[in-house]
Amino acid sequence: MTAREGREFFTVKTVSEALTGFRPERRTPVETVSLDDVLGRVPAEPIAAPHALPGFARATVDGFAVRAADTYGASEGLPSYLDLAGEARMGQPPEVDVRPGTAVAIATGAPLPPGADAVLKIEHTQHATPELLEVLRPVTPGEGMVRADEDAAAGAELIRPGRPLRAQDLGMLAAAGFTEIPVHARPRVAIVSTGDELVPAESPNALGVGQVRDASAPALAALVREAGGEPRFEGIVPDDARALTEALRRALAESKPPPLKGSDPLSRGGLDVSAGSSGGADVLVVSAGSSVGARDETAAAIASLGEPGIWCHGLAFRPGKPTLLADCGGVPVIGLPGNPRSALVVFRLIGIPIVRLVGGCTEPPPEPTVRARLARDLPSAAGRLDVVQVRLNGDEAEPLFGSSSLLSILTAADGCVVVPEAATGLAAGTDIEVTLYR
Amino acid sequence: MTAREGREFFTVKTVSEALTGFRPERRTPVETVSLDDVLGRVPAEPIAAPHALPGFARATVDGFAVRAADTYGASEGLPSYLDLAGEARMGQPPEVDVRPGTAVAIATGAPLPPGADAVLKIEHTQHATPELLEVLRPVTPGEGMVRADEDAAAGAELIRPGRPLRAQDLGMLAAAGFTEIPVHARPRVAIVSTGDELVPAESPNALGVGQVRDASAPALAALVREAGGEPRFEGIVPDDARALTEALRRALAESKPPPLKGSDPLSRGGLDVSAGSSGGADVLVVSAGSSVGARDETAAAIASLGEPGIWCHGLAFRPGKPTLLADCGGVPVIGLPGNPRSALVVFRLIGIPIVRLVGGCTEPPPEPTVRARLARDLPSAAGRLDVVQVRLNGDEAEPLFGSSSLLSILTAADGCVVVPEAATGLAAGTDIEVTLYR
Repeated sequence: MTAREGREFFTVKTVSEALTGFRPERRTPVETVSLDDVLGRVPAEPIAAPHALPGFARATVDGFAVRAADTYGASEGLPSYLDLAGEARMGQPPEVDVRPGTAVAIATGAPLPPGADAVLKIEHTQHATPELLEVLRPVTPGEGMVRADEDAAAGAELIRPGRPLRAQDLGMLAAAGFTEIPVHARPRVAIVSTGDELVPAESPNALGVGQVRDASAPALAALVREAGGEPRFEGIVPDDARALTEALRRALAESKPPPLKGSDPLSRGGLDVSAGSSGGADVLVVSAGSSVGARDETAAAIASLGEPGIWCHGLAFRPGKPTLLADCGGVPVIGLPGNPRSALVVFRLIGIPIVRLVGGCTEPPPEPTVRARLARDLPSAAGRLDVVQVRLNGDEAEPLFGSSSLLSILTAADGCVVVPEAATGLAAGTDIEVTLYR
Repeated sequence: MTAREGREFFTVKTVSEALTGFRPERRTPVETVSLDDVLGRVPAEPIAAPHALPGFARATVDGFAVRAADTYGASEGLPSYLDLAGEARMGQPPEVDVRPGTAVAIATGAPLPPGADAVLKIEHTQHATPELLEVLRPVTPGEGMVRADEDAAAGAELIRPGRPLRAQDLGMLAAAGFTEIPVHARPRVAIVSTGDELVPAESPNALGVGQVRDASAPALAALVREAGGEPRFEGIVPDDARALTEALRRALAESKPPPLKGSDPLSRGGLDVSAGSSGGADVLVVSAGSSVGARDETAAAIASLGEPGIWCHGLAFRPGKPTLLADCGGVPVIGLPGNPRSALVVFRLIGIPIVRLVGGCTEPPPEPTVRARLARDLPSAAGRLDVVQVRLNGDEAEPLFGSSSLLSILTAADGCVVVPEAATGLAAGTDIEVTLYR
């Protein structure tokens, strides 16, 4: 293989092929989490109502529990009269029945007394005497109340698995008496940065010429959190094949079934690895060196991690061309371009769905989007998907161009537009959908 | 005042009046948070680049650093020739200059040697001999590289205050060497539930007739978290004026400037208050009893908490009519309807913006929305805003109707549609914007 050939990407796929074809089977285990901490977590199984909800017929208005038939024909001109038989107390079992010709005072939320089949609003009544109620309008059965099983029948599915829990889901689970919910564990996502030019983000102001702080790792960690994962930074590895291979093996330690022999120090567990590594990963992210040599080394190191290995090396995608996807012994591995902007764009498009899937999320939360008018022509090559950052001015989307090494384009952007594979570009004035960054 | 009059809401406002007119001045203090934990937090001040970024001119392609003028006129048919003067090493200061007639090998990301003003892609060159480079295409100055200050000039604003930090913002802050960021503290939001019918969510399955678990508190706590706040549940208070007033005072303890005298046990600090209360609140949320009497008691208790007191009691809004907004000694207080569904709808619409504002957030993150076709007529009264839950079937939005006591309507919904104050309803087939729940 000549140097020129070594630079070419192999097994190039389209983004849609990657999104539909690279579907890791790995799922995180199930853990039980307190209701207080379960917002956004992914339920691992359907949850059914253990009993009917609210569990008893309840008034939904302030007024009087009645037999509806007793009110038929009542009007302001020709009221009906009911004997006041008592009061339904909030939070307590009814002490009095509603017999024909009687009414029981009731507040919103109180349980309906036996015999009642409707609640008459207080506004539609008048006291004739303290013991006699004047009914000014009729009610129909079921009016002014909810049935004992109207919020949920016993056994009804309250929560379906795979969709992150929303605020109202927590309310429903609380109403049904659940205080702990079985959810998928957050995927552990190990992040390895490579590059001789990289120094840690906490390096002081005076960097040497040629050195840059590792901007990708903290930003990728944030995206992992957005995807419901638990990021773990494994440090910066120099562009050295052996060092890289060792770092990746360490990141994966304990991810696979334990080895038969305990003599291999790289697979013995998480005990003897470097500080910061708690051992094992459900997803491995390599923020690769950006030079050709570093890319080749990364691919080789990933390929050595386990079978079946590299699924694609190269995506028909700008700025994500050097993306690498692999399955190494059951752990999905994502090799990202070295430029921080490219790395973040690729991880949003390809990485977040993988992390979600491994975490059991089959119904991702909706993304904010907005329609806008493209302010300028966007050229693109057919067969290649382009993600272009835009800034919004009112309903106009201004594309932001520049080197994929520039993070400022991402920080200046309100969102991005996708130019699909089939298009050869978008003309100025086109109505586009902008996915908003949040 | 007659009983009938007592039932009427007073100082009713529209939702838009509330959103524009009730703007608490309270802001949480500033704290310093590690870059690792700052995603979604609200920067308290603008952050400027301490030095230019990337800080040195960098190659953005693999190839050769050159003086662009040396390549003018080069073509495949008539190449130019440059002497290879060495290699620019990744992460290290250049050891060799690019003098006229020479080129220096360089990888993506490496620093440009002095004298070079462009990088020629490797694809547009050929080795004539190991020391001689054949240039097949010309480059213009600035091609294949970024300037030392192209990502940010020294002193340029990297982050503006008031907008929650996104993943790429963390990347940019890391690139600039920030490891700790001054952000607004999360607003402490005290939640008090009232109602004789309420029992804690952790109550076992066998509830008495008339009892319901407190579904609002956990769901409201989740919405507080979504708004960037720190919820604190203050417990369930019976529908009793004195108990309610005491619970609200306890929740507010330490929220106000310390008293001159230390003798008032209610303002002495957070030490002697009930378990779970760490003292003080930036926002107080009262999930009010739903009966008329309970509502009146809640209003009276809130009014007693401090000046200027109640701003509005009643919103022209379904299902949020009984909403109460108050400013009690500088703490915004939100009185919510007793029905869980109403309480959650009101808190999304009115409460989340208040919590965000108190937490310094002036640019809230975008909400996910989608256009859909309304499947059925939606009646509404002019002058009243309606929030109606919908379920999406493809591009059709099916409104979900039912008592505002039913949480199942919220859990079944994909989102909601707002029928504005001016409209008297929306006809089936109308193109609507659905705000998606996430």
